[in-house]
Amino acid sequence: MAYSFTPLAHDIKTKARLGVLKTDHGTVDTPVFMPVGTLGTVKAVTPNDLDQIGIEILLGNAYHLYLRPGIQVIEAHGGLHRFIGWPHPILTDSGGYQIMSLGRLVEVKTEGVTFQSHLDGSTIFLKPEDVMSIQKSLGSDIAMCLDECTGYPATYEETKRSMDISMIWAERCKRFDSGIQAVFGIVQGGTYKDLREKSAKGLVAMDFDGYALGGLSVGEEKFVTYSIMRHSLDFFPEDRPRYVMGMGSPADIFEAVACGSDMMDCVMPTRCARNGLLFTRQGKIVIKQACYAKDILPLDAECSCYTCRKFSRAYLRHLFMSGEILACILNTVHNLMFYKDLMTSIRKAIKEQRFNELKERFEKIYLN
Amino acid sequence: MAYSFTPLAHDIKTKARLGVLKTDHGTVDTPVFMPVGTLGTVKAVTPNDLDQIGIEILLGNAYHLYLRPGIQVIEAHGGLHRFIGWPHPILTDSGGYQIMSLGRLVEVKTEGVTFQSHLDGSTIFLKPEDVMSIQKSLGSDIAMCLDECTGYPATYEETKRSMDISMIWAERCKRFDSGIQAVFGIVQGGTYKDLREKSAKGLVAMDFDGYALGGLSVGEEKFVTYSIMRHSLDFFPEDRPRYVMGMGSPADIFEAVACGSDMMDCVMPTRCARNGLLFTRQGKIVIKQACYAKDILPLDAECSCYTCRKFSRAYLRHLFMSGEILACILNTVHNLMFYKDLMTSIRKAIKEQRFNELKERFEKIYLN
Repeated sequence: MAYSFTPLAHDIKTKARLGVLKTDHGTVDTPVFMPVGTLGTVKAVTPNDLDQIGIEILLGNAYHLYLRPGIQVIEAHGGLHRFIGWPHPILTDSGGYQIMSLGRLVEVKTEGVTFQSHLDGSTIFLKPEDVMSIQKSLGSDIAMCLDECTGYPATYEETKRSMDISMIWAERCKRFDSGIQAVFGIVQGGTYKDLREKSAKGLVAMDFDGYALGGLSVGEEKFVTYSIMRHSLDFFPEDRPRYVMGMGSPADIFEAVACGSDMMDCVMPTRCARNGLLFTRQGKIVIKQACYAKDILPLDAECSCYTCRKFSRAYLRHLFMSGEILACILNTVHNLMFYKDLMTSIRKAIKEQRFNELKERFEKIYLN
Repeated sequence: MAYSFTPLAHDIKTKARLGVLKTDHGTVDTPVFMPVGTLGTVKAVTPNDLDQIGIEILLGNAYHLYLRPGIQVIEAHGGLHRFIGWPHPILTDSGGYQIMSLGRLVEVKTEGVTFQSHLDGSTIFLKPEDVMSIQKSLGSDIAMCLDECTGYPATYEETKRSMDISMIWAERCKRFDSGIQAVFGIVQGGTYKDLREKSAKGLVAMDFDGYALGGLSVGEEKFVTYSIMRHSLDFFPEDRPRYVMGMGSPADIFEAVACGSDMMDCVMPTRCARNGLLFTRQGKIVIKQACYAKDILPLDAECSCYTCRKFSRAYLRHLFMSGEILACILNTVHNLMFYKDLMTSIRKAIKEQRFNELKERFEKIYLN
């Protein structure tokens, strides 16, 4: 396994940093935003589209792929990369979050988790080792430990119990480590800073290939999210990548990067695209609005994506109002390019020691 | 206007022929199949996808585009080509068929047609001149006359009255002829051969740039369709393109070409794709079938489309079963490539005097 992470440069005023993540399927410049390809596709676009946009790494989901199409099918293709036609790096989430949020949870014990499939209601028991074995079969470049994602609100006792179980699971995942993929530990502990500290320190002692922050953006207020993020990332070692899971809006991305995050993911650019919410350098555009009916301008004149090079806002509005699939395609291409360009400009700003300046300029336009 | 049609070669055993259609936006080899882009997009694919497949000419629909987004919007972009990002030839249907089939028809008189929009129920009156003016604004390369598409079944009297009105409208459309686009007349006359003959001869006397066969595949049996098609095309002049509207399945295409048709269109490849019905050289594939769950082969090993080069049947089944938009995209790309390859092989076979041989081989696999 060719896996390494090298921090390259630090911003002086914040904890933002540049780095390079190397995997068997290619190199990723960090900070990076990973589009979500839950079921083996980033919704509404082809791998070719993703390549054109310049996407370097995708997220897949072990829970979803385990249920559908099943691991045997993907193994028969020689792994997830070949199954979905994506030769570049893939990180697979363990599905801890999805088991809690989608399935009907039956029982969480130290041994493992029992839940009902959100597809057919069948009862499934998975141990941490099973989840690692699934990810090994998928052949992702980075596998995530099974964790219990604590809900919100949760009492201190509930959160502690949940964090403790996640810690035990992390240890078992680490012990399973097949050596063919990098494994990241996931910090839990809800909104309690001492639990977050305990979780982070415990995981760091286990010496993972990278560290993730889980259990955020589950209903808590934004200032709490940011506070926990700032607090927790400080316990992560310098020489390993830091991944803030499920982040986020452009403003969230800036905040996470400022706290030292190297990797982020979110359904926001793709889901918003399908709902006609588009990100531009001048702010958000709700494409169904009547003001765009005769607007012959591109979505964003500075954007170099296929959508902006070839089509007008009026055409995009027409497609959206007509319920055409092409609306989803073109909107998704644009929003992913916006996020890609955002990350490129963030990396450039860090390099040039003007990250805060970029962050402030952006926040004037994107106040969440 | 650079418009011309040149017949190049004839099959000896059938009436199949090769030709070249020249327009301001490019050259089209005939016989050609035109994908349907009713609302300014071929459903689920980008113009770039169509270019990659090798599509030479698209169909648009004046009725649909008139209602949504409206002609002013398209004019503001400098015409339909620019609005939809398609620099190659476009043929626009007048919408006669759609007015009858989608709108709530109020009244058809010699003067014009009154109908209610299928979108908002508003009452609209359109004269043949209006429909030509709309198509002039769209700037399509080929405009179709307004016709009344007779339903099925219809009595001789009904059909005659309807055909007579279409003839009067055709004359008015011809008189309107702006000289900036080619105009095709549309033969009507239902299932009555003498009416078809009268309609064809009347239109030919008006000297259109091409001739279309309308009002078929509206519910009549297939042998009737084919019989009327064979009969009617014989009245069309050698030196003008012949267009059989709304055809069809691969078997229909062979039949139309055998009768001397140069142009065809149908929603079949695109609609079937979205429903998971895929055309291959070995026959049809219903991708949801369980037998494809672990099938690592491409849809069609001889196909060079993006879908067949990059993905397995198992992946396509997975996408379809999961309701992913990518299923629509990849399936549409493949079915359009299948039709494109079909037309290429038909043209080659005509050139090499083995069209019938190809037709027979095909019919063994595709019995409709």
